[in-house]
Amino acid sequence: MVYEINANIDDMNSEIYSYIYEQILKMGALDVYTQSIYMKKNRPAVKLSVICEEEKLDEIVEFILKETTTLGIRYSKFSRKTLDRKMVKIKTKYGNISIKFAYYKSKILKYSPEYEECKVIAENFNIPLKVVYEDITCTVNKYLESFNKK
Amino acid sequence: MVYEINANIDDMNSEIYSYIYEQILKMGALDVYTQSIYMKKNRPAVKLSVICEEEKLDEIVEFILKETTTLGIRYSKFSRKTLDRKMVKIKTKYGNISIKFAYYKSKILKYSPEYEECKVIAENFNIPLKVVYEDITCTVNKYLESFNKK
Amino acid sequence: MVYEINANIDDMNSEIYSYIYEQILKMGALDVYTQSIYMKKNRPAVKLSVICEEEKLDEIVEFILKETTTLGIRYSKFSRKTLDRKMVKIKTKYGNISIKFAYYKSKILKYSPEYEECKVIAENFNIPLKVVYEDITCTVNKYLESFNKK
Amino acid sequence: MVYEINANIDDMNSEIYSYIYEQILKMGALDVYTQSIYMKKNRPAVKLSVICEEEKLDEIVEFILKETTTLGIRYSKFSRKTLDRKMVKIKTKYGNISIKFAYYKSKILKYSPEYEECKVIAENFNIPLKVVYEDITCTVNKYLESFNKK
Amino acid sequence: MVYEINANIDDMNSEIYSYIYEQILKMGALDVYTQSIYMKKNRPAVKLSVICEEEKLDEIVEFILKETTTLGIRYSKFSRKTLDRKMVKIKTKYGNISIKFAYYKSKILKYSPEYEECKVIAENFNIPLKVVYEDITCTVNKYLESFNKK
Amino acid sequence: MVYEINANIDDMNSEIYSYIYEQILKMGALDVYTQSIYMKKNRPAVKLSVICEEEKLDEIVEFILKETTTLGIRYSKFSRKTLDRKMVKIKTKYGNISIKFAYYKSKILKYSPEYEECKVIAENFNIPLKVVYEDITCTVNKYLESFNKK
Repeated sequence: MVYEINANIDDMNSEIYSYIYEQILKMGALDVYTQSIYMKKNRPAVKLSVICEEEKLDEIVEFILKETTTLGIRYSKFSRKTLDRKMVKIKTKYGNISIKFAYYKSKILKYSPEYEECKVIAENFNIPLKVVYEDITCTVNKYLESFNKK
Repeated sequence: MVYEINANIDDMNSEIYSYIYEQILKMGALDVYTQSIYMKKNRPAVKLSVICEEEKLDEIVEFILKETTTLGIRYSKFSRKTLDRKMVKIKTKYGNISIKFAYYKSKILKYSPEYEECKVIAENFNIPLKVVYEDITCTVNKYLESFNKK
Repeated sequence: MVYEINANIDDMNSEIYSYIYEQILKMGALDVYTQSIYMKKNRPAVKLSVICEEEKLDEIVEFILKETTTLGIRYSKFSRKTLDRKMVKIKTKYGNISIKFAYYKSKILKYSPEYEECKVIAENFNIPLKVVYEDITCTVNKYLESFNKK
Repeated sequence: MVYEINANIDDMNSEIYSYIYEQILKMGALDVYTQSIYMKKNRPAVKLSVICEEEKLDEIVEFILKETTTLGIRYSKFSRKTLDRKMVKIKTKYGNISIKFAYYKSKILKYSPEYEECKVIAENFNIPLKVVYEDITCTVNKYLESFNKK
Repeated sequence: MVYEINANIDDMNSEIYSYIYEQILKMGALDVYTQSIYMKKNRPAVKLSVICEEEKLDEIVEFILKETTTLGIRYSKFSRKTLDRKMVKIKTKYGNISIKFAYYKSKILKYSPEYEECKVIAENFNIPLKVVYEDITCTVNKYLESFNKK
Repeated sequence: MVYEINANIDDMNSEIYSYIYEQILKMGALDVYTQSIYMKKNRPAVKLSVICEEEKLDEIVEFILKETTTLGIRYSKFSRKTLDRKMVKIKTKYGNISIKFAYYKSKILKYSPEYEECKVIAENFNIPLKVVYEDITCTVNKYLESFNKK
C-alpha cells in the first residue's frame, strides 16, 4: 500500500518547483510529478502529486504545506504492484555501464541504462545521447539472447 | 465499485499507445485515457488511467506491466454512478440510425447517434460530419417531443 | 493579415489571468488563449497568445509587458480566413433568442445561440443549460430547412 | 474526510464549463478544476474534478449527471489537511484591504490579499494589478515583522 | 517552405477529431496535431494545427472551415528542414520488415520499423509490441555496424 | 528579429529532454520550452520550441535533427520586444543578493531575486524558499520606494 498526496497550487513562483521535486525525492518519496490544471476564473494551476509510503506521509504533507502556496492537501491509499529491479554492470563498447533490469515473476521484462552514465559518455565521445542509448540497449539485447540460449 | 489503475510512463515509443488503448478496451475495461504529466528532471511523461471492474483488474494490471515501460502501477477503489443506457434505432432522413439513450431515474436525459454510422453517412453523402450529427440530433429531439406529448 | 503575440509567463499569481483576458479583449483583440508549457529546470509555465489586428499591436504588447511578469514578447504576421457572421433573432419556445450565423461563400455553414441568453433561460426555467442549447439548435435547424425548401 | 468526484466529458460545448464551475461552487464544493485528457480514437476530452464534503456528495453527483454530457461519474474518499484561515483587514496605502492569513500550528505561514479588492484598486488607480499585489504583500510583510518583534 | 495552419475549436463533439485527422492526412498534409488550450470564461478548447505545402493550403483551409466549428483560421509560412528518408526491407527473426531510414548529409542518423507490421507480429506471436520494436531495432543496429566496417 | 524553431517529437526516451534543454541553452538560445501535443493514432507527443537569434539558427537546427528523434523541424521569424535588464546587488537580511531589474522606457517595471542564491539561503537558514523570496522582494520594494521619494 502507498499513499498518493495531491495539492493544487495556483500562485507560486515556478522556479520553486525544481527545489520541491529535489527535496521531496530526498525525503524518500517513490515518485513526484505535476499536471497542468485549470481552476475557476481562468486560473491556470498545477496539481502536484507525490507517491510515498506510510512512514513518509506526515513529513511530506508538512513540507508541502510549508514550502508551497497551497492551502490544503488531500491524500488516499493505493494498492501498488511493481516489478522487481536489479542493477547490473554490463560490458559495452563504452566501458562497463550500469543497467537496471526489471523482473516479473522472475523473468527479465525490461532494462534500461543509467541516464547519468550515458550522459557522460555522450559528452566525452561527442555523440548523440540517443545513439548511446541505442548502442547500449542492443548490447544488452544480445547479452540476454546468448543468456537465454544456454 | 470500480477500480482506477494508474501508471506513469516516461520512455515509451508513442506509436504503442493506440495498440494499448485497443487491447485494454478489448479486455473489457470501462474506460481508458491518458494525461500529460511532468516528472523530475524535465521529463515529459504520460499517465495512463484505466477504469475497470474487479474481475478484470489482475489481467489489465499484468498487461500494463508487460506491454508498457512502466516499472510500477497503482490502483484504488472508486464508487461509480452511471446513467442507464439503451440503443434504439430511429428513422432519419439518412435511414435508420442507432441512437444511444441515457436515462436517469427512468427519464431520458441524453442521447447521441453512433459515431461509426454517422461517419459512413458523411462519406457517402459527402457532407460534413458535424452536419450529420446535427440533423440526426434534431430528428431525435422532435421524436422525443412528440413522445412526451402523448 | 493579423498578428499573433506570444509571451511565456512563469512566475505570475494566476488570479491575474482573468483580469488580463478581460482587459485584452476590451482593447479589441480578436482572440486570447493560454497553453501550459514547461521550461528549463522543471518550471511549469503558461504561454499567453493574443490574435489582433495591426492597429492594436503596440497597445496590447505594452499592456502585456506592464501587467504580466514576462520579460519579453514575440509576434508575427498571419494570414487569416474567417466566416462572415450575422446575428439574427429567432423565435423559440423560450422567446426570441439571438443566434450567430456563420456564412461561407454566402451559404449558412454554422449557427450557435448566444451563451448569455441561454444561461438566463437555464436559470429561470431551472433546466440544464445543455438542454436549452439543444432545443434552440433544433429550432434553428427546422427554420433553416423550411427556408431552404422555398 | 472529503470526496473527490471525477467525470470524463468528451462532447460538450465548452461554453457550459464556466456555468458549471459557478453552480458547483454555489452548492458548497471545496474546489473544482479541470484537466485535459485524451481518450480512445484521438478524442480530446476534459476530466472534471470536484472536492466536496460528504453531505454535498449526492447533490453534486446528480448535478453533474444532469448538466454535463458524461455518462458516468466516479468518486472516492480522501483524507484532507488544510491550514486554518482567517480574514483580517490591514491598512495599506490603497486603504483597508482584506488579507487572508493561513496558519499552521498557530503560526502564520502564508497570506494573500483578496483578488476582487485588488482588481478594483488596479482599475481605479490605473496601475498594473501585479504592482498592487506586490505593494500590499510588502505592507503585510512589514506588519508581521513588527508584530513578531514585540 | 511550408504552411502552418491553426484553428481554435471550442465547441465540437470530440468524436469528430479522428475523422478530421484522417481526412486531412488523406488530402496530403505533412502533419496534423492538436494541443489543449484555454480560452476566456474558463473554456477548455483545442488548437488544431496542420503543416502542409502551398498547393494543399486552400483545400485544407476550406475543409477545416466546413467540417469543424471554428469561425476563423490563421496560417503562416515556415521554413522547413527534414531528413531524407528511405524505406528498406531488412531480414529479422520475424521475417522481412520495412525499416524507415533517415539520412542527414548522406549519413544514416535514425531508423524505425513500420508500426503496422510490428503490430501484426505482436498479435501473431503473442509477444509485447515493445519487445518486437526492441528486437527489430537491435537487428538493424547490428546490420548497420557490419555495414560500416566494410 | 528572432527565430522560433519547432520540432514534433513522438518517440524519444524522455530522460533525454533535460540534456537537450541544457545543451541548447549552452549554445546561446534565448528560450527553450516544451508543450504536450497529440498526433494521429492517439500518439501523445512533445513539441519542442526554441527561440534564438539568426546566427545561432543553423547550429541549433542541426543539433535538434541529430540529437532528437524528429524527422523534420520548421522555423519562422518573429519580431521581439524585451525589457532592458540589469543585475544589481541589494543588501538584505540574508546578505547581499543579486536582483534582476527589468526596465521599460527607463522605468523599473519588475525585479526578481536570483533563484540559485535564494535556494542556498533556504537550505542554509532552513526556511521555506518562498519565504526567502517574499522577504527579499519586500526589501527591494522598500529600497525602490525610498529611491523614488528622493
